Amino acid sequence: MLDGRPIRIRHHADGDGMCASVPTQTALENFAARVYGDPSATQHTIKRLPSKAPFYETEDVVRDLNYALEDRERRGQRMPLLLMLDNGSTAEDVPAYRTLSQYDVPIVAVDHHHPDPDAVAPWLDAHVNPYLEGEDYAVTTGMLCVELARMIDPDLTDDLEHVPAIAGLSDRSDAAAMTDYLALAKEAGYDEDGLEDVGEALDYAAFQLRYNDGRHLVDDLLDLGGDSERHRELISLLAERAERDNERQLDATLPHTEREDLPNGAACFRVDLEEYAHRFTYPPPGKTTGKIHDRKVAEEGEPVITIGYGPDFAVLRSDGVRLDIPQTVAELTDELPGAGVSGGGHLVVGSIKFVKGKRETVLERLVEKLGDADLDEQLGSAAVAGFED
Amino acid sequence: MLDGRPIRIRHHADGDGMCASVPTQTALENFAARVYGDPSATQHTIKRLPSKAPFYETEDVVRDLNYALEDRERRGQRMPLLLMLDNGSTAEDVPAYRTLSQYDVPIVAVDHHHPDPDAVAPWLDAHVNPYLEGEDYAVTTGMLCVELARMIDPDLTDDLEHVPAIAGLSDRSDAAAMTDYLALAKEAGYDEDGLEDVGEALDYAAFQLRYNDGRHLVDDLLDLGGDSERHRELISLLAERAERDNERQLDATLPHTEREDLPNGAACFRVDLEEYAHRFTYPPPGKTTGKIHDRKVAEEGEPVITIGYGPDFAVLRSDGVRLDIPQTVAELTDELPGAGVSGGGHLVVGSIKFVKGKRETVLERLVEKLGDADLDEQLGSAAVAGFED
Amino acid sequence: MLDGRPIRIRHHADGDGMCASVPTQTALENFAARVYGDPSATQHTIKRLPSKAPFYETEDVVRDLNYALEDRERRGQRMPLLLMLDNGSTAEDVPAYRTLSQYDVPIVAVDHHHPDPDAVAPWLDAHVNPYLEGEDYAVTTGMLCVELARMIDPDLTDDLEHVPAIAGLSDRSDAAAMTDYLALAKEAGYDEDGLEDVGEALDYAAFQLRYNDGRHLVDDLLDLGGDSERHRELISLLAERAERDNERQLDATLPHTEREDLPNGAACFRVDLEEYAHRFTYPPPGKTTGKIHDRKVAEEGEPVITIGYGPDFAVLRSDGVRLDIPQTVAELTDELPGAGVSGGGHLVVGSIKFVKGKRETVLERLVEKLGDADLDEQLGSAAVAGFED
Repeated sequence: MLDGRPIRIRHHADGDGMCASVPTQTALENFAARVYGDPSATQHTIKRLPSKAPFYETEDVVRDLNYALEDRERRGQRMPLLLMLDNGSTAEDVPAYRTLSQYDVPIVAVDHHHPDPDAVAPWLDAHVNPYLEGEDYAVTTGMLCVELARMIDPDLTDDLEHVPAIAGLSDRSDAAAMTDYLALAKEAGYDEDGLEDVGEALDYAAFQLRYNDGRHLVDDLLDLGGDSERHRELISLLAERAERDNERQLDATLPHTEREDLPNGAACFRVDLEEYAHRFTYPPPGKTTGKIHDRKVAEEGEPVITIGYGPDFAVLRSDGVRLDIPQTVAELTDELPGAGVSGGGHLVVGSIKFVKGKRETVLERLVEKLGDADLDEQLGSAAVAGFED
Repeated sequence: MLDGRPIRIRHHADGDGMCASVPTQTALENFAARVYGDPSATQHTIKRLPSKAPFYETEDVVRDLNYALEDRERRGQRMPLLLMLDNGSTAEDVPAYRTLSQYDVPIVAVDHHHPDPDAVAPWLDAHVNPYLEGEDYAVTTGMLCVELARMIDPDLTDDLEHVPAIAGLSDRSDAAAMTDYLALAKEAGYDEDGLEDVGEALDYAAFQLRYNDGRHLVDDLLDLGGDSERHRELISLLAERAERDNERQLDATLPHTEREDLPNGAACFRVDLEEYAHRFTYPPPGKTTGKIHDRKVAEEGEPVITIGYGPDFAVLRSDGVRLDIPQTVAELTDELPGAGVSGGGHLVVGSIKFVKGKRETVLERLVEKLGDADLDEQLGSAAVAGFED
Repeated sequence: MLDGRPIRIRHHADGDGMCASVPTQTALENFAARVYGDPSATQHTIKRLPSKAPFYETEDVVRDLNYALEDRERRGQRMPLLLMLDNGSTAEDVPAYRTLSQYDVPIVAVDHHHPDPDAVAPWLDAHVNPYLEGEDYAVTTGMLCVELARMIDPDLTDDLEHVPAIAGLSDRSDAAAMTDYLALAKEAGYDEDGLEDVGEALDYAAFQLRYNDGRHLVDDLLDLGGDSERHRELISLLAERAERDNERQLDATLPHTEREDLPNGAACFRVDLEEYAHRFTYPPPGKTTGKIHDRKVAEEGEPVITIGYGPDFAVLRSDGVRLDIPQTVAELTDELPGAGVSGGGHLVVGSIKFVKGKRETVLERLVEKLGDADLDEQLGSAAVAGFED
């Protein structure tokens, strides 16, 4: 089935997604070069494509399909194998999968987002997801894919020892394995603070690169480029830029972040990102909301809910509150016809879209529901993070 | 004059525009392959470029010209022949034509939009338009170009039998020939409902493809790709997505669509698309306004006028009212200096732009004028449609 | 150090920036063709990249770097020499320079913007700037680069006689040398009015071309394309379009431009460009503000200050007032925490950014400060122009 097929890797454009896709790409290239005896054979055959959205968008699949058909015609290539990494497990991916199913494009998903296995199973040739094995989000896609990369090219093992730890830190994994991964990275010469910086630098670079895979730069950021001195300089540079931009965004937004004490005892912080955040620059709204939330949790302790909103969207982060955001969104959609509510995410971290003219109504009803939720000392966004656009 | 020239096809990125340009491209490619004895000869020589705007924008001509000059330098190509399809008949195209006239780029327009023949004649080497022959919009560009394609490559005849019907349905043609075209399509195995779906699917795909020609995907959508089973599956898939998105948009906008009874007896429906429509997604404002209008006409019968407006634009659709939108726009421009009014379209379907700060003034005066118009049982937007961005 | 390196020319996308970069590119290409004996050798080795911002943006450097690394891998090229033209002299360029410094990319800046030599010196292999030699902005980058181009390829001398005059007019240079440059151009057959038109046409084309270098079209606009008749036709066409669009913008904005007499006797004109200007079209906000300002100065004489503002920015132009805009911005940033103020420019011409929700506060305080400034008959924006985005 795979013989002679090019490979297209679609991955979530965040830290974990890059920790997952870059080693996989490298391993596949090494494999192809060995098989074909020619390193340049991989140039058109293995491509990595970052996705901004947490699912396979119609626009992306339409273009990917068109390029594949063109490559088939121009270069006589077979249709590709699609590898969905850190993405691709949910019902939102199904329309794209259905389109591809008309074209002999086998699909494999390796992901750790909460899956909807019944919805996607008919369209996937393989589906790797920790939830399918009784594990959860804390086993990140980067962790999984480093194993995959080592299976494909065992020679990579030594180079990748620090990557699972970066992946885990990027997505705030509380997996039991994190202790081992951090120890492994430490042995290889990377301490935890430095790895956090790598995560920040990857996130910053992903934002600046947009739809560009940034191949060689990302190799250096992950210290897979063969020059560790350069790796350290670049990380220090980009992490510092990210930190400076985050601080600038906090300076602009914190003075306008309003506190409300909810009936259930949680502190709810709200901020209008359209009015008070720097726009079209790093950090974007999801990350901005996360940074404000982290600051508030650090200052005030849990339970805390933070809402960063724009004209037609809201981003939610919470700690210490027993929420079910997908359920809340479903209720709002039903209760507010004509408000165009949609959205989702995880239980306690998510985002909501609505039409501009109904923003006040939606936010008011949303806060009511948040104030009715039970408190919970266990659940926190730390446990399901990696959700920041 | 044409010998050895590459060809650039600029076409309106809608259903009729694709029905016009895709068969023409295929016929020209077949012709070139026959002449040069090499199918790959066509790769750089015949290119299809979708245009969002209903005229040849400055930005587009500047880029097209630059690419042509580069191809001349790099590949030694001659300057291209420009084929304007379903576009190119009006005074708005003249600045682009004037620029090209400095560069030995012959231009041919095949179009069914209301032409300004005096304005464009000096710049065109040929101009095909039903209005020039006493016909009108109902003879769509897709109908014309299928004939053109058959002249260039008679072997295509059997493959294209359903295409004029799709073109006509996409632009709601009431041409007498539609009966024959539908019968021809039916004989070839395509019933009217299915062809309507093809129109919807083309429109949906054009939106997702943006500036990409989507060559092979569009071939399959038009059933020119050689796999009718795949064609049917794709159409069903995309038409269903388009329908779902249209319904979602109607759910969001209809509750906020306000009715006003005009002095002339027409019902005028208005909706603020910035506030109440899902933005930056399918369907875009023009199509959204059309769907609301169709719903209102179906529910209430004519005469009906529908206005979908944003911060600095309004889209108009009407049935059963004797309007002259270009004339109305001209009056508003004169009467409201400093409002930045421009726009146009057809008699009873069109769009208006203005500066944000004068929106209320412009809309108020516009509705006054609409309320003064005579009613008309004959004219309807069905007769001049194909106007939806 | 330079042997065998490709060259990347990053330049400000305005009239002076094109007068600087196009002759330099041509001279380098001629030089490379002579050295390698093959004109096509230059295709991948010398590239010109327009920058919208007046500094080297993170997004741009990240992409440039990635392309360079890819070219190195795919084509075995060395890392490039970076030539910053009409850009690159300030502290804002340092983060980009630091990133490049990890990658063996030598950098040379030729610029006439007010430099911060201490900040950039450690990163530059050479820095040419009139301020470093006791001269100022009036010696434009175009003037400097024509000399540079002649040094690289003396055969170009005759072709470039009119270019320094265009550069000077584009940036309103009051350099003593302008008289000689205009005389030199006149001898070569170009009168001042015609050269002004070239400046307008270049500015218009730069706007339409966006990130495209527009190589061959720009050659014709500068009359370096070898067909002077075509040059004249194109200039007349584009200058006329620019003029028409400028008039259209003035028609929309002037009726909404409000006058306030400041305590210091200056007339301050303000206009809300979001509400009253045509948006996303030529002329953009900086140019629009400049055109309004020029009109007001012509009608009323100095001292005049003009502020064109949008939701989160303001553009300033002044004549006859002793301002220090960078200083004013620094004060606003300090005095208004949470307003997200940043910006800069020259003493009497500049722009300010802020968060939307604090616009009224920022503008009010800004106007207060402008009203406190001393009047000055000497300083005028004419002396430091070339600042228009």
